[in-house]
Amino acid sequence: MRIAKDMAFHFEIIKKDNSSEARLGRIETDHGILSTPAFLPVGTQGTVKSLTPEELMEIGVEAILGNTYHLYLRPGHGTIGRLGGLHQFIHWEKPILTDSGGFQIFSLGSLRKISEEGVTFQSHLDGSPHFLTPEKVVEIQRVLGSDIAMVLDECAPYPSPYEYVKTSMERTSRWAKRSLKERRGTDPALFAIVQGGMYRDLREKSAQTLVEMEFQGYAIGGLSVGEPKSAMWDVLKWILPFLPKDLPRYLMGVGTPEDILEAVRLGVDFFDCVLPTRNARNGTLFTSSGKISIKQAQYAEDRRPVDETCACYTCCHYSRAYLRHLYLSKEILSSRLNTIHNLYYYINLLGKIKEAIQDGNFLDFYQSQTSRHGLERAISVHFQSH
Amino acid sequence: MRIAKDMAFHFEIIKKDNSSEARLGRIETDHGILSTPAFLPVGTQGTVKSLTPEELMEIGVEAILGNTYHLYLRPGHGTIGRLGGLHQFIHWEKPILTDSGGFQIFSLGSLRKISEEGVTFQSHLDGSPHFLTPEKVVEIQRVLGSDIAMVLDECAPYPSPYEYVKTSMERTSRWAKRSLKERRGTDPALFAIVQGGMYRDLREKSAQTLVEMEFQGYAIGGLSVGEPKSAMWDVLKWILPFLPKDLPRYLMGVGTPEDILEAVRLGVDFFDCVLPTRNARNGTLFTSSGKISIKQAQYAEDRRPVDETCACYTCCHYSRAYLRHLYLSKEILSSRLNTIHNLYYYINLLGKIKEAIQDGNFLDFYQSQTSRHGLERAISVHFQSH
Repeated sequence: MRIAKDMAFHFEIIKKDNSSEARLGRIETDHGILSTPAFLPVGTQGTVKSLTPEELMEIGVEAILGNTYHLYLRPGHGTIGRLGGLHQFIHWEKPILTDSGGFQIFSLGSLRKISEEGVTFQSHLDGSPHFLTPEKVVEIQRVLGSDIAMVLDECAPYPSPYEYVKTSMERTSRWAKRSLKERRGTDPALFAIVQGGMYRDLREKSAQTLVEMEFQGYAIGGLSVGEPKSAMWDVLKWILPFLPKDLPRYLMGVGTPEDILEAVRLGVDFFDCVLPTRNARNGTLFTSSGKISIKQAQYAEDRRPVDETCACYTCCHYSRAYLRHLYLSKEILSSRLNTIHNLYYYINLLGKIKEAIQDGNFLDFYQSQTSRHGLERAISVHFQSH
Repeated sequence: MRIAKDMAFHFEIIKKDNSSEARLGRIETDHGILSTPAFLPVGTQGTVKSLTPEELMEIGVEAILGNTYHLYLRPGHGTIGRLGGLHQFIHWEKPILTDSGGFQIFSLGSLRKISEEGVTFQSHLDGSPHFLTPEKVVEIQRVLGSDIAMVLDECAPYPSPYEYVKTSMERTSRWAKRSLKERRGTDPALFAIVQGGMYRDLREKSAQTLVEMEFQGYAIGGLSVGEPKSAMWDVLKWILPFLPKDLPRYLMGVGTPEDILEAVRLGVDFFDCVLPTRNARNGTLFTSSGKISIKQAQYAEDRRPVDETCACYTCCHYSRAYLRHLYLSKEILSSRLNTIHNLYYYINLLGKIKEAIQDGNFLDFYQSQTSRHGLERAISVHFQSH
């Protein structure tokens, strides 16, 4: 257990699973506790799309993610800072993790240009030119007042040639060093991001280099970018042994319920992903017996809730027929009710994972879930590859 | 006081104002009480756009309006009936008024054709042909299970020539008679709709004819369709003396806070209008010192709530700066928070009106509000015209 001197950031492992790398933990921040394994809904522009903070809390959400790229462009971190910081601005008093904007900036393609000093890009909103450095990104997140900040990294596209990924990863490591140097004691906790594409030596080198720098936590970036699922598990298995056991591990932008189960088994502590919220707005709902598309004609007069085993607000009060009607009618309430259900599904899954680790039967739970989701074959193949 | 035999519909005047035609009343239905003067938010497609029923109740909404035209086309009244009726379908246990669809159908322009028997029209959704009669419209609202149903009427466009409006009004009266004949004792309360454009003799004739038929209430239709404000007040002053004092009076599709104050003074009991909800989604917010457009640059760093005298959820927790950010970012939460505020403003205004009538100082309140809204001149002109 490490406790940083100048800030309230503290990670503690409560219980380690005997039969896997899964761990039960808690992260303490100035804005409260995040119990891990955890899932952070994405609040891109200062709102988890369609929901209020009270609804997130009722669902059991303990922390959310904000996108530095989006908030920097609009309304601007200066504005948010002058208004008391991101928590006050958006009326969310619990922990906030902000990403570095790297993923969004590198997704801009031809609109951005990278140099050793930093990255130049054009705003997707108005085409205005911007230049961000690792130092500036630390400063922006300081002004936003987040609880966990991320270093500026380059997320190389998949697939990329070895030499490209090597150059990119090495620069990301140098940027990480500059970020740490910029960080003041009262700043948010700062996490490094392991990159290196799908190349084992680059991933290991990235992890080793970053671990030497003593960040408050480590993230795994550059996954769920189009690679085969097996590549994601390979990368995690390469990296995780290098990361400090007593620091939190964050798998960025992942993933499906099955991905989360698998990554927890391998030792990941928390996740963020747009999947449950974006799927909700597209009418795709998670249930205990698989995903359903609520727009299908078969639900036109279906008076059952989305999931008869679910206790969320949506399932307590509304039929599939009504949710289908709202979706087809493009009603705002459709996005709300679907988002509540999907996030509840995720938070409830994480709750069951925590309970299973606590009770010492995580692997049983893992197997019951994965077989239930029809993934037996994929998992058994994966087990053999160990 | 009249009590219909076969259904739970009962209107009672609790207090009559001494200095105006304003009345404090209550409508009892199978789904609870509507205290008048009242404002009904519009739930076009089975949802008051962006809000849940719990939020409506927290705001103090006692009844909502559903659009028969929209629900008939999608998901279909048959579907809603088989799912237990509109209240159960949309999870709203309080009173529902359904309109007849007349206004929407006649707004279709070239897509509809009227005959003595009924109206043929094409769906705005898929162009499919439909034929509705006064009897069918009563049946649809029976199947929806609303508490207050409206007769099929023709809302003549403004301006229309005298002969056109006369023919239309007379047919609307014949349709009202057929509607009443179709009505069963267990059906929703049925309201007639006074038409007749801006022509005094036609309006009076319409009112007289419909009052002879003994409906459970009377609505004033065909207003707020582009006519000058003074014409609306003229029509109300012509009609209201003809309507039974002991039955509820409903002014359809009206209006601004000032319109409501004025119409209450003239003796109207309740209203529906898309204004507060539609304005909310367009970023126009009602405040105690007038309307504001939340997108304006002046609010970029304004940490005040929309209205410092307002106790709604939005004003309790969010700054103008955040609401502006959500609006510019096209976030769903923008529509939600703005709608909560505007509906709260309306419901709160009606609450104050009721209190003022109860306390015997409605006219003082009326004058304080109208002068506050900078309408002194308009109102004084209106007073002179009495």
